[in-house]
Amino acid sequence: QIIETVSRDMMMQWVATHVKKKARVGFDPTLFTAAQVAQYKKSALQHGWTLIPMAQNPIDMLWEDRPEEIIRAAEIHPLIYAGVSREAKIKNIITAVSAQAHALLIAQPSLVCWLLNIRGRDVAHNPLLQSFALIEKTGRVTVFTDLRKIPKTMRAELKKAVTFEGLDTLYDRLARFKKTVQADFTHLPFSIKEFCDKKRVALINQTDSGVMMRALKNKAEIAGMKKAQAEDRKAFYVFLKWYASQNFAKAKITEWDIMARLRAARAASRDFVDESFNTIAGFGPNGAIVHYAAEKKSALRLKPNNLLLLDSGGQYRYGTTDVTRTLAVGKPTPIMKRHYTIVLKGLIALSTARFPAGTTGAQLDVLARAPIWQNGLIYTHGTGHGVGAFSGVHEGPQGFSPNYHVALEPGMVLSVEPGIYLKNTYGIRLENLVIVIQDKKPGDVYSMLAFETITSIPFDDALIDWTLLDKTERDFMKRFGNYS
Amino acid sequence: QIIETVSRDMMMQWVATHVKKKARVGFDPTLFTAAQVAQYKKSALQHGWTLIPMAQNPIDMLWEDRPEEIIRAAEIHPLIYAGVSREAKIKNIITAVSAQAHALLIAQPSLVCWLLNIRGRDVAHNPLLQSFALIEKTGRVTVFTDLRKIPKTMRAELKKAVTFEGLDTLYDRLARFKKTVQADFTHLPFSIKEFCDKKRVALINQTDSGVMMRALKNKAEIAGMKKAQAEDRKAFYVFLKWYASQNFAKAKITEWDIMARLRAARAASRDFVDESFNTIAGFGPNGAIVHYAAEKKSALRLKPNNLLLLDSGGQYRYGTTDVTRTLAVGKPTPIMKRHYTIVLKGLIALSTARFPAGTTGAQLDVLARAPIWQNGLIYTHGTGHGVGAFSGVHEGPQGFSPNYHVALEPGMVLSVEPGIYLKNTYGIRLENLVIVIQDKKPGDVYSMLAFETITSIPFDDALIDWTLLDKTERDFMKRFGNYS
Repeated sequence: QIIETVSRDMMMQWVATHVKKKARVGFDPTLFTAAQVAQYKKSALQHGWTLIPMAQNPIDMLWEDRPEEIIRAAEIHPLIYAGVSREAKIKNIITAVSAQAHALLIAQPSLVCWLLNIRGRDVAHNPLLQSFALIEKTGRVTVFTDLRKIPKTMRAELKKAVTFEGLDTLYDRLARFKKTVQADFTHLPFSIKEFCDKKRVALINQTDSGVMMRALKNKAEIAGMKKAQAEDRKAFYVFLKWYASQNFAKAKITEWDIMARLRAARAASRDFVDESFNTIAGFGPNGAIVHYAAEKKSALRLKPNNLLLLDSGGQYRYGTTDVTRTLAVGKPTPIMKRHYTIVLKGLIALSTARFPAGTTGAQLDVLARAPIWQNGLIYTHGTGHGVGAFSGVHEGPQGFSPNYHVALEPGMVLSVEPGIYLKNTYGIRLENLVIVIQDKKPGDVYSMLAFETITSIPFDDALIDWTLLDKTERDFMKRFGNYS
Repeated sequence: QIIETVSRDMMMQWVATHVKKKARVGFDPTLFTAAQVAQYKKSALQHGWTLIPMAQNPIDMLWEDRPEEIIRAAEIHPLIYAGVSREAKIKNIITAVSAQAHALLIAQPSLVCWLLNIRGRDVAHNPLLQSFALIEKTGRVTVFTDLRKIPKTMRAELKKAVTFEGLDTLYDRLARFKKTVQADFTHLPFSIKEFCDKKRVALINQTDSGVMMRALKNKAEIAGMKKAQAEDRKAFYVFLKWYASQNFAKAKITEWDIMARLRAARAASRDFVDESFNTIAGFGPNGAIVHYAAEKKSALRLKPNNLLLLDSGGQYRYGTTDVTRTLAVGKPTPIMKRHYTIVLKGLIALSTARFPAGTTGAQLDVLARAPIWQNGLIYTHGTGHGVGAFSGVHEGPQGFSPNYHVALEPGMVLSVEPGIYLKNTYGIRLENLVIVIQDKKPGDVYSMLAFETITSIPFDDALIDWTLLDKTERDFMKRFGNYS
């Protein structure tokens, strides 16, 4: 699932052009990070208006039919999948805390879950528990969360490492903690920053070091990611078998039906937890809308002869998947095949790259674009993003786009997903997941890294113009097989 | 001629680790820019020592046998080569001066020369006049330089546009100029900045806009660059004919002889002014030393069977060249051919790229590296740099390396020069110059840019393993022909 290149300043630019000078603009301090507010304040100063944190969110006050929050129990993420114990992770993360700080406050729920080998069900598609963790250098760890979500068994199992407290006690605890606290301001809610400033709790702003630790998947996590791929492949085969048997000229099949079929195929796995995001099933012109989301009522019916862009993924207990395939609906034209094969060439060029240590995703990104540019086409989104292990399907810090300046290291998982989008016509995107690996070959003078492609779901053979592929490219295609 | 990736902080890092706390470190304020000193002061503050500008340079004081400065006359750069009149350039540059400033002080001699369509002979290989230009918004332009270098005819021809003044009058003029002056602190000597601060002359720091204007070569300049290539090709043919007739087992030919032969071949052109840098002729192991400079006494003798790396260029009245060829000495081994062809593949991959507007050299850089990385080899220098038109052979702001974040635009000239360096064995580098052009092809959906290769000096056919090249690559090679 692609990440669009949007400016982080867009919201503030909108406000800057639409709000009068000397205006007072209210905001909910729990919904913006300390870093965002610092940036917005600069912009406000420049444009002559003021930002006012509000004690109550007026939209919440007006939202009368708001559904009750559903309380879902958190779960242990077993060591067999996590690979490293929570005790070892806590030890590591304490080592990385700044010398000036006495404790670390983690405000990223997915990072709290990674650190403590737990998962939650608070947010659709993302198996995380809404929580904060305070890690004191003494080794004491407190998780602040809605205690109704913590089963007694979990509390017992984590007893040695962690104490659970109610979310509302976090402020009080910080006020009583008289020493310096480190936090990552790009995730810390402004409300907490404001509170600490008021209570004179010293804060140090530093990037969460756990983000980089988490990015380097260990053997157990890599095994889990591969197992998830095997489950995904099974599900896709069931789906594709059904798909191949349809007569789209007669059968009234919509994008919505495709989404349901695919979900059902994945849900057949006993380890399936959720989809990793809302499936994108874009038929013809809808495929050219990059973040298209079909709705039941307006979903298009699939009709020959056109293309279906299908971007989906699963959350399995041991891993997360994300895959895009573009399928023929009826008989593809030669130009469709040509376009499809150009995108495939981009996917292969990046997937088969070798590179020395220190190389960034920003550097490699163009390898996927070059074959597409060569044909006078472009795509305006990133080429790939990091992927979590039974966690968020978008997970930093690595990725492929001119903006990812993090060196790629063995164990990092990324998506590779070039595409082309022809307005009102169709979209083509092809996506695999890859893992960064050490790669030794005879004759190498330097030590090199490479990617191992872990996705093995087949490509639509009807859309490949094999005359456009060279031997290396044809060899790469062997791992995927053919479903027809 | 390649640019090595070195940290700008290296000198300060050295000082920081070698100087005691509370030390007072003297420096010559005329030899460091305002931007450098600002950065060094930060470092000094951090490490607890102090920077002291010195009124006299102690090294100059000790330099007893310093040769007299040779005064060489500056020359008009004719409009037929410059393409745009100095009046038009001055007008343009005034438009780009900050609204807050009343004048622009240009402290880059090469930029003064570009602006005024003049050239000088003050520095080896770089046809520039050491000078400053003060451009007032009223249109008044004063050039501060050693007046002995300005012939009466030049003074007369430039009379309408420019007044020439002695270098020593610059300070006095700035002191009397009571309004705000814009300057580029990455070029402004610290001594001038210090003087302005003392005299309360307000300075605004802004990147010289002329740098970008100069980078986009006009039709006349492009014609000149191509004419220079034609002259260079003629010279290289003479050199290569001689080279091909040598029996390196018997003839005692050294790197020094190669440099002299090549210089003589170029100097035969009536439009030859100078070499654009000191030729790098690196035989065998010396070829693996990236910035090797042979000296007469220690130059290696060329012996079979090995390689000669030859990086050279010429300054012609209308254009500048820069070319690297690696030549076989005797009979090359299959592995030499393989290494050579891998570098050639990198050169071709970047040279044949197509890309949309907005693409930077940082993005495209990897295209030249990928084929080399694919074979377990690397190079640690930039892939290319901007090149001047009868000006510096290194000219910004564009280039190919992860550090060049300037979008490539039609008219920019760059070198493409990947390489590999096998310590104590040999080095291979291949370099052409290219111009960014608009590139329309049937079927293009978006408007694309591409490179036109303007170098046409042949490659050493004996070193090409044609089985490693595909059709596109073989087609690319057609423009170079064969000299043997």
